[in-house]
Amino acid sequence: MVNMTAGNEREADDLFKEFRETSITEFFRKNRAHLGYSGKLRSLTTIVHEIVTNALDACEEAGILPEIQIGIDSLGVEHYRVSGSDNGPGIPIKHVPDVFGKMLAGTKFHRNVQLRGQQGIGVAGVTLFSQITTGKPIKVKTSTGNGKVHEIELMIDITKNKADILKHEEYSEYWRGTGIGIEVKGVKFNLGERGPFEYLRRTAIANPHTRITFIDPEGRKTIFDRSSEKIPKPPVPVRAHPKGLEVDEIINMAKATKARKANSFLVTSLSRMSNAKVKEIQEYVSFDLDKNPRKLTWSECEEIINAIEKTKFLAPSMEGLEAIGEEHVRNAVLNILDPEFEAVLTRPPKVHSGGIPFQVEVAIAVGGQAGRNVGEGTRYELMRFANKAPLLFDAGGCAITKAVSSVDWKRYGIKDFENSPVTVFVNVLSTHIPYISAGKQSIAEDRKIMKEVRFALMEVGRRFQLYHSRKRRALEKEAKKQILLRYGSELASALAQLSNKNEEKIRKALQKLVDERITGMDLEEEEANESEMETMLEGESEDDSEIPEADFTTEEE
Amino acid sequence: MVNMTAGNEREADDLFKEFRETSITEFFRKNRAHLGYSGKLRSLTTIVHEIVTNALDACEEAGILPEIQIGIDSLGVEHYRVSGSDNGPGIPIKHVPDVFGKMLAGTKFHRNVQLRGQQGIGVAGVTLFSQITTGKPIKVKTSTGNGKVHEIELMIDITKNKADILKHEEYSEYWRGTGIGIEVKGVKFNLGERGPFEYLRRTAIANPHTRITFIDPEGRKTIFDRSSEKIPKPPVPVRAHPKGLEVDEIINMAKATKARKANSFLVTSLSRMSNAKVKEIQEYVSFDLDKNPRKLTWSECEEIINAIEKTKFLAPSMEGLEAIGEEHVRNAVLNILDPEFEAVLTRPPKVHSGGIPFQVEVAIAVGGQAGRNVGEGTRYELMRFANKAPLLFDAGGCAITKAVSSVDWKRYGIKDFENSPVTVFVNVLSTHIPYISAGKQSIAEDRKIMKEVRFALMEVGRRFQLYHSRKRRALEKEAKKQILLRYGSELASALAQLSNKNEEKIRKALQKLVDERITGMDLEEEEANESEMETMLEGESEDDSEIPEADFTTEEE
Repeated sequence: MVNMTAGNEREADDLFKEFRETSITEFFRKNRAHLGYSGKLRSLTTIVHEIVTNALDACEEAGILPEIQIGIDSLGVEHYRVSGSDNGPGIPIKHVPDVFGKMLAGTKFHRNVQLRGQQGIGVAGVTLFSQITTGKPIKVKTSTGNGKVHEIELMIDITKNKADILKHEEYSEYWRGTGIGIEVKGVKFNLGERGPFEYLRRTAIANPHTRITFIDPEGRKTIFDRSSEKIPKPPVPVRAHPKGLEVDEIINMAKATKARKANSFLVTSLSRMSNAKVKEIQEYVSFDLDKNPRKLTWSECEEIINAIEKTKFLAPSMEGLEAIGEEHVRNAVLNILDPEFEAVLTRPPKVHSGGIPFQVEVAIAVGGQAGRNVGEGTRYELMRFANKAPLLFDAGGCAITKAVSSVDWKRYGIKDFENSPVTVFVNVLSTHIPYISAGKQSIAEDRKIMKEVRFALMEVGRRFQLYHSRKRRALEKEAKKQILLRYGSELASALAQLSNKNEEKIRKALQKLVDERITGMDLEEEEANESEMETMLEGESEDDSEIPEADFTTEEE
Repeated sequence: MVNMTAGNEREADDLFKEFRETSITEFFRKNRAHLGYSGKLRSLTTIVHEIVTNALDACEEAGILPEIQIGIDSLGVEHYRVSGSDNGPGIPIKHVPDVFGKMLAGTKFHRNVQLRGQQGIGVAGVTLFSQITTGKPIKVKTSTGNGKVHEIELMIDITKNKADILKHEEYSEYWRGTGIGIEVKGVKFNLGERGPFEYLRRTAIANPHTRITFIDPEGRKTIFDRSSEKIPKPPVPVRAHPKGLEVDEIINMAKATKARKANSFLVTSLSRMSNAKVKEIQEYVSFDLDKNPRKLTWSECEEIINAIEKTKFLAPSMEGLEAIGEEHVRNAVLNILDPEFEAVLTRPPKVHSGGIPFQVEVAIAVGGQAGRNVGEGTRYELMRFANKAPLLFDAGGCAITKAVSSVDWKRYGIKDFENSPVTVFVNVLSTHIPYISAGKQSIAEDRKIMKEVRFALMEVGRRFQLYHSRKRRALEKEAKKQILLRYGSELASALAQLSNKNEEKIRKALQKLVDERITGMDLEEEEANESEMETMLEGESEDDSEIPEADFTTEEE
């Protein structure tokens, strides 16, 4: 037994006098860095990011070609008004308070759907940031196109995580869309590579169907026009893929199902789960899958998971994933960077933990305007995207950055990668991106995502190497040919005098000879080179031996 | 007006059918990586971290010398039981459900107090992780020493963020403390530098008054014994420092104050705010500070903030910050690393954003067991701590790591820093550490924190340089002396024969001469060297010109 009254000890009841519950809004008010509000430039970019991603998601779901206006007005030192509006479907008036004035409320969290937003926090974070820096409410104007327009001003009641409506006006007008206006302090605008302008430029690259008009604090207007009129397929919620599912998830799904039997529950709730597959699973488990799914026990679900591990399934369907597409990425890259060489690749979809499908698209551009100008020269530039939204911050810890660094670029003929005029473009698509924090600027080091990005980059690297060595050989060949032709021309003249034959005829014959020889050399060399390259690349295809182990110890050790 | 029925457009009401609220527990269940549950090893270390930090915080607040037991039993493949117990103050029974079964509930969030925990999420996260990987509840045993012991089993009702009590037994026994047991799957134990063993070893280093007993899955018992019997001062909540306060915070504090006048509100609510300082502020603001603080408007509070900017205040008081202390850090470093050279430094406290005091302690150890063994050699090792809790993950994005890399170690005589036998120890103390995410393994790039860490490291770097150059000179001196003495000995013998005097006497005289000369040289050289070094280091003291700007663009651009 311990002496309970010794020294200056304090008792538990005394210590717990301070016990309190905190609202999610209080939490993020104190930890605003988790939402991306850390630093003056970053905070402003975060606001633009939240407005734009919400607008794009709404338009995409509604099947509308997006038109987005963003304006940033300077109101004083580190004091700005940010306004945004879209031609989206609008927000039904009864949901407006929750969308802008409540955290963890939204349409996306509960669905496996590929959208930029996924948490129901972002835009309420904008309201919060506005009110804690200026004490001013967010102004919202919205209409679903039903002839009624609503104008609302609201703040968040921080301790209750609930909207506090300060003003609500309704009037008749046929218009559709959503506009918001906020006033913020302690932020800074610039045109640098992490600022709102660059954010919008990259958004335009990854969303070629979008038209964005931007007016910066100096009144300059930029229009990022659309290069495609094709509305992307509205994202569809997908059922989870069996591989990567967890027991806990099966139990939760089983509680919510309308199916009466476990076997039909599995078929209706999971993708790629056919009746034939359920029969295979039945052979591995010790109980009858005819039972009520709501009565599945933990250990029975564990048996199902183990059976799934032993069973083969088709790869996840593409239906839930809508890539930008190689053609659009190529157009955007050519348009903006006008490179000497470019390669674009979309990998087939894979599954990461939780049975969640994901897909990787990459592009590489070399020469031309590719790379990043840094005064004394050009450096390599990495454009990261998640579900087509640009990631401008927290590059260091991001799975994409680590995958890019893991590639041995020298092997593909890029000697000093860091200091070369190269732009690497990577977009990760998923119905659930495993971000590191609620600020959503960095993808967690998921081994499977890193592998996919790496393989895609290795493939475009190989294509560059092919181009590079062909180009080198073409240059060498041309040089040889010029030398031979020069001598040939002199030789023709000498031969013509000696033999008294037509000089022009002799020159043509010699030229033909040179052409044949050079082409012959070329073919031989090409063959030799290709097989050399194959040997060189052998054993490299899709193994991950080069990814430094240290990069993964945090993940799957 | 837009055509509302064109093509395949979907309407807002349809899209918002899916609108739902999410509980904070559902949020973290889906985004468990934010809490540190990503990767098998990391998840296990996170569990140990949550148990240990809660135990240490409780003991520290109660003024108890901590005794902590941690056990990890293997129950199968990637399947473990983790148990932990402490001799802390115990938890009053009415708070047990909320402590373990509700997120965002706790005693620490609302106080400015230097503790390891600060959010009220961590240990409920352990319950959540246990139940989603094994379906099993957390088992808790606790008593406040009042003769009644409670044993409880609970899970979290995820949609309600509320405890679901499965079992509660009460019996009579005089015992005090808290023990918990959980069962988890999908995790992995190892003895590596990011595993539970290393976590506990580093905890022991930074908490020399703590005794930790650890039993690993193979039954091996390790006792990290205390090297000090001194109980650290219980942390005291501190009032905010005026510098770095925000308008929003003053408004909130003014609403909660019991003071009747704005001037007395400022004096009682803020640290370092005296009546004299309030008088200075009165001169800058356009209204009378005699007014009711609850009636302060936003623009009046802005005036107060602007006035504070123009006013000088004493640095924040140390009272809220309890460093490990140079002596304890030195003992720990000597004990564990037995280095050839070590230097320890505690910087004076500073204020980061939000008027929050923080302080930095650093140590450097060179040679001996310092550094990290990596098979082919020794590499530099960085031990990061926040409020004395080890940070083992997410090193890449951490302010501490960036500050260490920003130092030009060559300048201090460490040529190949990355590959040298050097251990750098950094502990950041604060009543609110700005972590990057709820997982609390990485400190956000706060410019002020990075500067402090950098300056502290530059200072210990200088001390190493002094040692290093003295050592080099001492070696050179000794070599010269040996040469002179050798010749002296031969000379003495020759002189003795020539002069017929006592050889021994002559040798002694020569030796005295050599000693005098060498010492003389030494003094001259030392002076020359010191002034050379001063010139070399000039202009370097505490400027941040060397911190690469890129490191800061995310923060304060």
